[in-house]
Amino acid sequence: MASGEEKKSKANASGEGKKSKANASGGAKKKEVKKETGLGLTNSKDGNFGEWYSEVVVNAELIEYYDISGCYILRPWAMSIWEIMQAFFDVEIKKMNIQNCYFPLFVSPGVLQKEKDHVEGFAPEVAWVTKSGESELEVPIAIRPTSETVMYPYFSKWIRGHRDLPLKLNQWCNVVRWEFSNPTPFIRSREFLWQEGHTAFATKAEADTEVLDILELYRRIYEEFLAIPVVKGRKSEHEKFAGGLYTTSVEAFIPNNGRGIQGATSHCLGQNFAKMFEINFENEKGEKGMVWQNSWAYSTRTVIVIPVPYKDADTKGIFDACAATVDALSKAGIRAKADFRDNYSPGWKYSHWEMKGVPLRIEIGPKDLANSQVRAVRRDNSAKIDIPSAKLVEQVQEMLDNIQQSLFDIAKQKRDASVETVRTWDEFVEALGQRKLILAPWCDEEEVEKDVKARTKGEIGAAKSLCSPFDQPELPEGTVCFASGKPAKKWTYWGRSY
Amino acid sequence: MASGEEKKSKANASGEGKKSKANASGGAKKKEVKKETGLGLTNSKDGNFGEWYSEVVVNAELIEYYDISGCYILRPWAMSIWEIMQAFFDVEIKKMNIQNCYFPLFVSPGVLQKEKDHVEGFAPEVAWVTKSGESELEVPIAIRPTSETVMYPYFSKWIRGHRDLPLKLNQWCNVVRWEFSNPTPFIRSREFLWQEGHTAFATKAEADTEVLDILELYRRIYEEFLAIPVVKGRKSEHEKFAGGLYTTSVEAFIPNNGRGIQGATSHCLGQNFAKMFEINFENEKGEKGMVWQNSWAYSTRTVIVIPVPYKDADTKGIFDACAATVDALSKAGIRAKADFRDNYSPGWKYSHWEMKGVPLRIEIGPKDLANSQVRAVRRDNSAKIDIPSAKLVEQVQEMLDNIQQSLFDIAKQKRDASVETVRTWDEFVEALGQRKLILAPWCDEEEVEKDVKARTKGEIGAAKSLCSPFDQPELPEGTVCFASGKPAKKWTYWGRSY
Repeated sequence: MASGEEKKSKANASGEGKKSKANASGGAKKKEVKKETGLGLTNSKDGNFGEWYSEVVVNAELIEYYDISGCYILRPWAMSIWEIMQAFFDVEIKKMNIQNCYFPLFVSPGVLQKEKDHVEGFAPEVAWVTKSGESELEVPIAIRPTSETVMYPYFSKWIRGHRDLPLKLNQWCNVVRWEFSNPTPFIRSREFLWQEGHTAFATKAEADTEVLDILELYRRIYEEFLAIPVVKGRKSEHEKFAGGLYTTSVEAFIPNNGRGIQGATSHCLGQNFAKMFEINFENEKGEKGMVWQNSWAYSTRTVIVIPVPYKDADTKGIFDACAATVDALSKAGIRAKADFRDNYSPGWKYSHWEMKGVPLRIEIGPKDLANSQVRAVRRDNSAKIDIPSAKLVEQVQEMLDNIQQSLFDIAKQKRDASVETVRTWDEFVEALGQRKLILAPWCDEEEVEKDVKARTKGEIGAAKSLCSPFDQPELPEGTVCFASGKPAKKWTYWGRSY
Repeated sequence: MASGEEKKSKANASGEGKKSKANASGGAKKKEVKKETGLGLTNSKDGNFGEWYSEVVVNAELIEYYDISGCYILRPWAMSIWEIMQAFFDVEIKKMNIQNCYFPLFVSPGVLQKEKDHVEGFAPEVAWVTKSGESELEVPIAIRPTSETVMYPYFSKWIRGHRDLPLKLNQWCNVVRWEFSNPTPFIRSREFLWQEGHTAFATKAEADTEVLDILELYRRIYEEFLAIPVVKGRKSEHEKFAGGLYTTSVEAFIPNNGRGIQGATSHCLGQNFAKMFEINFENEKGEKGMVWQNSWAYSTRTVIVIPVPYKDADTKGIFDACAATVDALSKAGIRAKADFRDNYSPGWKYSHWEMKGVPLRIEIGPKDLANSQVRAVRRDNSAKIDIPSAKLVEQVQEMLDNIQQSLFDIAKQKRDASVETVRTWDEFVEALGQRKLILAPWCDEEEVEKDVKARTKGEIGAAKSLCSPFDQPELPEGTVCFASGKPAKKWTYWGRSY
């Protein structure tokens, strides 16, 4: 079942394990440190993005590969990032009067198959439980790939009159999609954690508003927490959620390999599920569901404080200063940690925390102690600044803000530099060859989209529509579709995607 | 697959649904209100505890029955209680430097079967995935019933030297145990949410200490949050966790039906799993896992504020006063909510929130408005107190503290009144017939315990050992075991249990 990619990644993971053992047992420490200083990566981001990615998520201790293909262990470092995003999102949706609940992991086949388009979209990836202990189940039971069909029979029961509306529920849970194409940590895994919101309104207008309110929260998670620029827009009919009315999304782009990534989606389901599940109330009907996917995350604002003792130096004084620094930063609401381990050199620690993506490192040595200062080193540009202890919190906060802004700006510049506006098929093919994020005028016909997919099918995957940005450039009268030559209706982003 | 119990509960659930519909559509409102005032329960707690319980969890909107037997929907009211307990526990374990992580839902058969005693304990209840889409899997894959065997191969990989210890992980997740005996919401369900902590130490002493630190947190959840008195103690060899060294637990007791409930367990696994999974480090080895089960929860500290308008009264003034009251209480950190629904009478609302277990109700009518006061009504003893608006927060806080203490004291009195100390088999049998929580001197032999089970097997279930309380009464020289007549080694609680 394991794909080639998967096998290679496993090899990486176990290689890493052996390396740690060598470190811990002490012998070859000096050599290891030297090697680690270059972050110990054998692949480069531009050279082989896939391999580089696998190495990074393992070496940064975000992920451990697991003995079932497509399943991954989220290690504490990844989990702490997920918890930060959870905490933000959970507070925001509670402000919107959305309530958390928990529906079962299992779905009976009858319910799963109720909505035809929906089940066709998910059926090939559904995992089935057929046995418990040694006994065959009378009826196989599905594991939820998403919970529309799990929840909506109960929406039907709970919603009677317009006073029961809006009904706004959310759950944090795991879902399972037994996909067979390249499994990739965070991006395509067979089990993943997410939140799924399911709401029902009396009117389409209320549903439409909420779709965009939620999409804006998703944008904030990507841009404000992860410093990843995204485009907000609408998915094509072909790419929309199976069984829904329309889908909006935030789309990110990886310039290094020219692939788009759907960051999160917010769907308007229209009244299709309401019809199938008989979710009725008085004379008006409305229903909306929104989901977003667990995606990969680099780093968040954390500070690591590392003591840099020298022979004959006041080691205790240095350690105390480190502890006091962490204490002061923590009290100001900045996540900070000191690395006091005595079996690793300062250099090894610098690399270790750099690998983990910690944006700011603070070093305290004898000179800093004597001058009542600390040395702060930015991860993004290696800039070193001496900060007087009296101004610690203020200047660290400022540096973190600068780093966040700078990471975002650079990512945005790179993303924007990858955008190519095209008007003809030839321009489109050329841009695709250059792994661009392609903005093209489109006739908005599903057949044309399928045709684009078919015509660009190649070794590294076909192009598909990503989204039609809400922020539309002007579309002059007479503009034609890049693919069909028919009158264009909108600008749409195209490219290869995960 | 549904048991008789299950079918009856479903009938209740759908009956309730119909009732709501009748209410919402308006017609027979007055009659309904009258009926609802007695909380609308058709079973009494002392008469038929099981049926009463099913009705309460459905009518309080904690649970919705689901179309797969043994799976239940946790509605927002239940989820909000779970979230409060989660928030408390999560903060406490983070103070102990335990880190959250997430391991996969799926386990491969080879790993699951690695520890013999352990797999024997869980095998009959394991759910197996054998198909994805239309394809048979090459190897069936198990759904975790608990995560010892999921995690420990990676403990083996991550732990190399003593500097990697202690390793202290926790995860919040769902697990599946396909049990066939009476499914009951919160108490015995086929899928449930829990946290599971898994830790590894260099020494047994550290592990022993943590077992008790965690057990104390479990006690606090039951006693300080849920006002349920529990006994802390050690499980017998027969009842301990499969594959572990010893198990400690907090045990609750339901006087109404004379059953014990294991509230949560904290296990010391000794070195048994470490041996099986080769979790080795240098020259000392230590390992510990702790789990606790999701259990049922009544109410937490919430205040409901209900406007009581009269004809010709200053309705707007009353509504404003309600909003201001909620605002003041919320700012003081008290969970408060106003029920402004205009399609239900004050009387109906009183019953509704009483059903949901809200401990304190505040009513504001024209007279209260005129006197700058609110009327507070305790759920537990119906006492009514007029609180001057100026002293609102202070007096509400005091009342809530009193209610919490009083709920706990009464529960403890009832529990203590159910305890019967026995010394002989005849006394034991008599006390069991009276559904007591039985404290008896015991020889601590597994064969004797099995014998007690066999001899008490009856319609309503056999007696088993619950725990040996850490707080042991004096055991005078010469005391003999109630069941075997051999010298007694300890006092142990016995009874029927869930």
